[in-house]
Amino acid sequence: MSEGASSPESQRQFSHLFPTEAIASTPPTGQCPVEQCPIEKTFVDQCPVENTFTDSCPAVPSTSTNKTSQSTYKSNAGVDFVIIFKFPTNQPDVTREQLEAKTTKALESLTTKLSKVGLRFQIRPGKERGVLLVLVGCPSNLLYQALKRERIRDFLLGVRVDDIEEDGKSRSINMSDVTDSERLRLVYDLITSPETEGGASISPDLDECVDSIMPLHDENFDKQWIKSWSKKWMLDQDDINKIRDQFGEKIAYYFAFLQNYFVWLSVPSVLGAFVYMTHTNTLTIGFSVFMLVWAVVYLEMWKRKEKELAVMWGVRNCSKYEKRRAEYGGDGTIKDEVTGEELPFVAPWKTIVRRILAIPGVALGAVFLSSIVGFVFFLQLFLHEYYAGPFAQILHYAPTIGYVLFIPTMTNIYNKWVKILNDWEMHKTDASWESNYTKKIFIANFLVGYLSLFITGWVYIPFGDHVLPYLSHYNISHDHKKVDFLRLRDQLVYFVVTGQVVGFATEMIVPYIMQKAMPKAQELKEKVTKGNTESSFPEDQLGTPEMSGPEAAFMKRVYKQVGLEEYNIYTDYVEMVIQFGYVSMFSTVWPLTALCCMINNWVELRSDALKICKYTRRPIPLRAEGAGPWIGNMETLVWLSSITMASFAYLFHPSTNIHSPYTPILTLLAIMVSEHLYVLLRILIQTAIEIIPSWSDVVVKKEDYKLKKVWLDRLASTSQSSVKQDANSSWNYEESHDELTKHVWSDRTSQDAQNQEGIRLVEAVFKTK
Amino acid sequence: MSEGASSPESQRQFSHLFPTEAIASTPPTGQCPVEQCPIEKTFVDQCPVENTFTDSCPAVPSTSTNKTSQSTYKSNAGVDFVIIFKFPTNQPDVTREQLEAKTTKALESLTTKLSKVGLRFQIRPGKERGVLLVLVGCPSNLLYQALKRERIRDFLLGVRVDDIEEDGKSRSINMSDVTDSERLRLVYDLITSPETEGGASISPDLDECVDSIMPLHDENFDKQWIKSWSKKWMLDQDDINKIRDQFGEKIAYYFAFLQNYFVWLSVPSVLGAFVYMTHTNTLTIGFSVFMLVWAVVYLEMWKRKEKELAVMWGVRNCSKYEKRRAEYGGDGTIKDEVTGEELPFVAPWKTIVRRILAIPGVALGAVFLSSIVGFVFFLQLFLHEYYAGPFAQILHYAPTIGYVLFIPTMTNIYNKWVKILNDWEMHKTDASWESNYTKKIFIANFLVGYLSLFITGWVYIPFGDHVLPYLSHYNISHDHKKVDFLRLRDQLVYFVVTGQVVGFATEMIVPYIMQKAMPKAQELKEKVTKGNTESSFPEDQLGTPEMSGPEAAFMKRVYKQVGLEEYNIYTDYVEMVIQFGYVSMFSTVWPLTALCCMINNWVELRSDALKICKYTRRPIPLRAEGAGPWIGNMETLVWLSSITMASFAYLFHPSTNIHSPYTPILTLLAIMVSEHLYVLLRILIQTAIEIIPSWSDVVVKKEDYKLKKVWLDRLASTSQSSVKQDANSSWNYEESHDELTKHVWSDRTSQDAQNQEGIRLVEAVFKTK
Repeated sequence: MSEGASSPESQRQFSHLFPTEAIASTPPTGQCPVEQCPIEKTFVDQCPVENTFTDSCPAVPSTSTNKTSQSTYKSNAGVDFVIIFKFPTNQPDVTREQLEAKTTKALESLTTKLSKVGLRFQIRPGKERGVLLVLVGCPSNLLYQALKRERIRDFLLGVRVDDIEEDGKSRSINMSDVTDSERLRLVYDLITSPETEGGASISPDLDECVDSIMPLHDENFDKQWIKSWSKKWMLDQDDINKIRDQFGEKIAYYFAFLQNYFVWLSVPSVLGAFVYMTHTNTLTIGFSVFMLVWAVVYLEMWKRKEKELAVMWGVRNCSKYEKRRAEYGGDGTIKDEVTGEELPFVAPWKTIVRRILAIPGVALGAVFLSSIVGFVFFLQLFLHEYYAGPFAQILHYAPTIGYVLFIPTMTNIYNKWVKILNDWEMHKTDASWESNYTKKIFIANFLVGYLSLFITGWVYIPFGDHVLPYLSHYNISHDHKKVDFLRLRDQLVYFVVTGQVVGFATEMIVPYIMQKAMPKAQELKEKVTKGNTESSFPEDQLGTPEMSGPEAAFMKRVYKQVGLEEYNIYTDYVEMVIQFGYVSMFSTVWPLTALCCMINNWVELRSDALKICKYTRRPIPLRAEGAGPWIGNMETLVWLSSITMASFAYLFHPSTNIHSPYTPILTLLAIMVSEHLYVLLRILIQTAIEIIPSWSDVVVKKEDYKLKKVWLDRLASTSQSSVKQDANSSWNYEESHDELTKHVWSDRTSQDAQNQEGIRLVEAVFKTK
Repeated sequence: MSEGASSPESQRQFSHLFPTEAIASTPPTGQCPVEQCPIEKTFVDQCPVENTFTDSCPAVPSTSTNKTSQSTYKSNAGVDFVIIFKFPTNQPDVTREQLEAKTTKALESLTTKLSKVGLRFQIRPGKERGVLLVLVGCPSNLLYQALKRERIRDFLLGVRVDDIEEDGKSRSINMSDVTDSERLRLVYDLITSPETEGGASISPDLDECVDSIMPLHDENFDKQWIKSWSKKWMLDQDDINKIRDQFGEKIAYYFAFLQNYFVWLSVPSVLGAFVYMTHTNTLTIGFSVFMLVWAVVYLEMWKRKEKELAVMWGVRNCSKYEKRRAEYGGDGTIKDEVTGEELPFVAPWKTIVRRILAIPGVALGAVFLSSIVGFVFFLQLFLHEYYAGPFAQILHYAPTIGYVLFIPTMTNIYNKWVKILNDWEMHKTDASWESNYTKKIFIANFLVGYLSLFITGWVYIPFGDHVLPYLSHYNISHDHKKVDFLRLRDQLVYFVVTGQVVGFATEMIVPYIMQKAMPKAQELKEKVTKGNTESSFPEDQLGTPEMSGPEAAFMKRVYKQVGLEEYNIYTDYVEMVIQFGYVSMFSTVWPLTALCCMINNWVELRSDALKICKYTRRPIPLRAEGAGPWIGNMETLVWLSSITMASFAYLFHPSTNIHSPYTPILTLLAIMVSEHLYVLLRILIQTAIEIIPSWSDVVVKKEDYKLKKVWLDRLASTSQSSVKQDANSSWNYEESHDELTKHVWSDRTSQDAQNQEGIRLVEAVFKTK
């Protein structure tokens, strides 16, 4: 696939490097390689037999896999991806002929690219005007080539270490071992990779009429998934492995994270419930420190779990492979020193300047969002606490509506704004883009989720009573007496309980209603506006060949899935991370927070599964080595926990006079102590956890050792020849060399003589005395 | 060398994996491989041609190398290492015969081990009674085997990526390309590695009478080195590369660090001198922030430089190879799951408990040392400032003598104590042991170096005036008036100037005098005590064969070097790190600090070179990937800089009333702000530096790409065969599969037909309207 021609000699030299050596042009035994080396997933053997610490041995992921590996492919009639081709049917200042010519050209360019790579396609009309669907399928030999190429890349990057069997044989590729997610990922790579890397270089960002590229759901799998999860109380590793085989590691990591977090929440849930029942002042130093330790330990253990999953799923080091973003245009091109390609180039100082300039941009968005959140908060405060005028009953609910409808809209505006900024920052790789984008949207969700709590705890409660005289002064009637700590608790309960119920509703119930109601509304609308001038599109008018029974049903499924939203993993992660913030930062304010979140997450796990199956398109399977940038955000939250808990523990302690002028400065000191405690705790816990061995280390070491042993065995067998070869070398002191060397070595060459000499010297010492 | 037998088939499969493929039993061309693939160091090509940013292209390290590569070997008559075999000649309760038998056994065990591996040796009497010298040489075929083994390990670990030439040929090993340091390192590995890894498993910790293992100096190189450095004002990369070729990467990193630090010091030197001349109050916020930024940037740039050197010297990733410590005994043995060996095993909880218990142990040592330092400080204070009694003139100098003699002794006691603790902590690898030991000795040097400055700045100056009334009360006469900031400056100047002069003296002048004076004193002593009962040892009495001219001279050199101290790299690093602390933490107190340190380091670079050549044994060449744990300690110092500079800037500001009760709390707030500023600055600077490309990244990418290209070319050549192979696969939809798939794909197979269909659909859309 690479364009560079290599000499036959170099090929011979490396001919045995390949895991697929057995299928080379002249296989040594002449047998079919697949029969020769049957696949035996050695995962069970790799697990340490006596695993005395930490986790139990992970379940074997392969048995269920083999059965389902061709499931998607079969149930979708060999269609791997659907490219949605959207073209304008009407544009001002452009004649219809020009538009048609342009569209035809774009379509031809698309199909040419597909054909060039060797992908098959079928073109079908879309459900709407101006939409065509290009069904793309991958022939098996092409897939096989792509798989081989990836395996080699993986071996070189150290992603796969398990390609060598116990007896030193390399493992050949068995196509029936390829999971659905791997197949789809490879095909997606074929469609989207740059041409220099053997792909078709098709992308919604580069090709004018390509709207999106989507895989099709495997309906059988989806049904089984929902069914099995709705019956289980606890998920196990096998459930997560199934998701990995179907949707790829990125989605699987989300579910693994959610499940792991759910289990870890049990600790603060139980302790929180206990503290809630036994203490009146829950803001104790003891409980605060416990929550801090829990949060740090949990995060460190999750990072460890991430690594273990990476080893188990064979994606360790896969993030080392950095794919350039197709959108990375650059100021001009530069000839790459490595590959000789013409690559887009941007001066580093320009990147730095843009990153710096983006900071005020994000700050602007954050200020905008903060003022919205602040306004809604103070409105709510005013209406709840001070306002007793007309329509008080109705106006009471206005802020909640604001939270549910107004703020999410503003957040979306912010998200779009930072996406523009993030694109403008010119990131070279997807990983870099994603990491920076995640940080930016985290800021928004942080403000919406916590700002009003911070205002309540740090501004309103300490200083709120100063406002009362002014209210009286302006003759505003109010029934408010005193601002105290319970106000903060109420605010938190609102977020944890109401917020999660509302979240569930917008995620599950609204889409359900929309899905049921929208098609009917659409139909109605179409009937009214278009009347009878145009009949329903496309079957009747376009003269497509009649679709017979099964194909019609299949296309109906395709149309339905094309009409769905793309799955957005950010939304799901951000929800969990913000929730983690409530638990770690505010558990001392209301100790039942963790319990509430735990219940929510039990439902969340299942409703997210349902959402993926029913309300979104199938996500494109991507590899990942963990939850990625979210963990960094969670670490920020743990650091903030040390600030919030320390400040609350001091501010709201019964003995603290909250209105004393020394209070702010003493609160700051409490925060300072707590921050240092946090840093110290983190170092200690990290060190301690590093000492505990993980089974994944053993697996990795074992694989490394196997590889090394094969090479060393080979070395041992060549030693004779090298000794012979040695005679040519000029490095023997027996032959060349000067007087001195001869003196030192040649006179008494025999090692036995030397031993005698040594003994004689020892004897001499003892006898002379 | 590995004991496991492998099937011939597996050998065949991997036969071409080897860089040394050409010397396999049946070389394809029948030619000598060394002539076939002459070594052409491609370092120059690897350097980016257009290096628009940062550093210039590093100098080519190889030209000078080739000439000196056999230099040590030749000048030392083929002796690579000297094993010093020390045995007791007299022990209570043991008869002389028993002792002799024991010694003979130990010696035989040693020689057997050496012979087994294939190393040559010569036994010579030592200069003292009860000492034998075993001169060890390595035959070239053994070295060749060891080198091959290491190259394979390096390739698998990703240490060497440059073993493939531009045209895809693998590079064979040319023995004349092996540097002195590489040769000695390989031989040292052969002597000390466990037997399972093909070594002789000789170690001073395991073998009873083995006192130490040392290589011999290359006197020609040493002379040239001293000569060339004493003539140069500035060192360049080539000078550092020469050290690397001679003494290995670990020593070379020290000199590279020192040189790099020396250059970076020029920035605060110039600015410091400017501030010193123009400002009366040097403790400004501006200068403090500048110093903080400088320290952070310098450390980040050094970390980058470290990585670049690792790529240049081919030691990238070498720290991944974790050699088990020979001293790691364990509670018992466990059968290793990976290799099947019986390995020492320690339960992780035990390790954690021991690490935790070691903390109070270190704390105890630190408290002990702190009280000594504190005592000397207050004594000095009292004598300098308050005491005006008899002998005041003489007693004035007592504390300085304390600093020079008393405190170093106490530090040595502390160092021994923490070494015991560190051994007790049971570290599995040398890297882990060293990292923890470094932290512990850093604490001692930290206390000695800075504690009295902290006491002066934070205790004595703010609270010292409270002591005066008590002094008067006890009728102690004093001529002291007022405690102020200048007291801190004096203290600092003492450390920076006097401390460094004293350091130079103890490092250079004392050993010089000792070396000149000691042998004569020894002679005199021997003459007096032993009289004529025993003549000079060993030549006359032991009856060793007469040494002729050159050998006698050679043995004299050996005896001289055996009598030297081992080189201790800790002492040199710790001196520099503590000095860095003066610059980063206290530059605002005395802005000339950096300038003084810069002058000192110019001398230090040269005196350290002289020290290695003249006053210590040749260090054992070890690989390293950087300055290691010291950088972590320097980062701690930068964090402390944010504390010291902020507190001094507030405390000693002209407008601050130092005796106000609010001062301590406001100082703490200043510190808090400064610490957060430091964390923020660090994140920003790290991000910015990451964006700037480094030439080493390009080199690494280029090598990776070459490797990948060779593999992909090979893949392309096998595609035909795989298409054939494909027919066997059950994955072709043309053949198998259900009704639906046939419907969707088989009816309109031709891609041209599909293109026509697409165009027809587009036309239909535009025409229907």
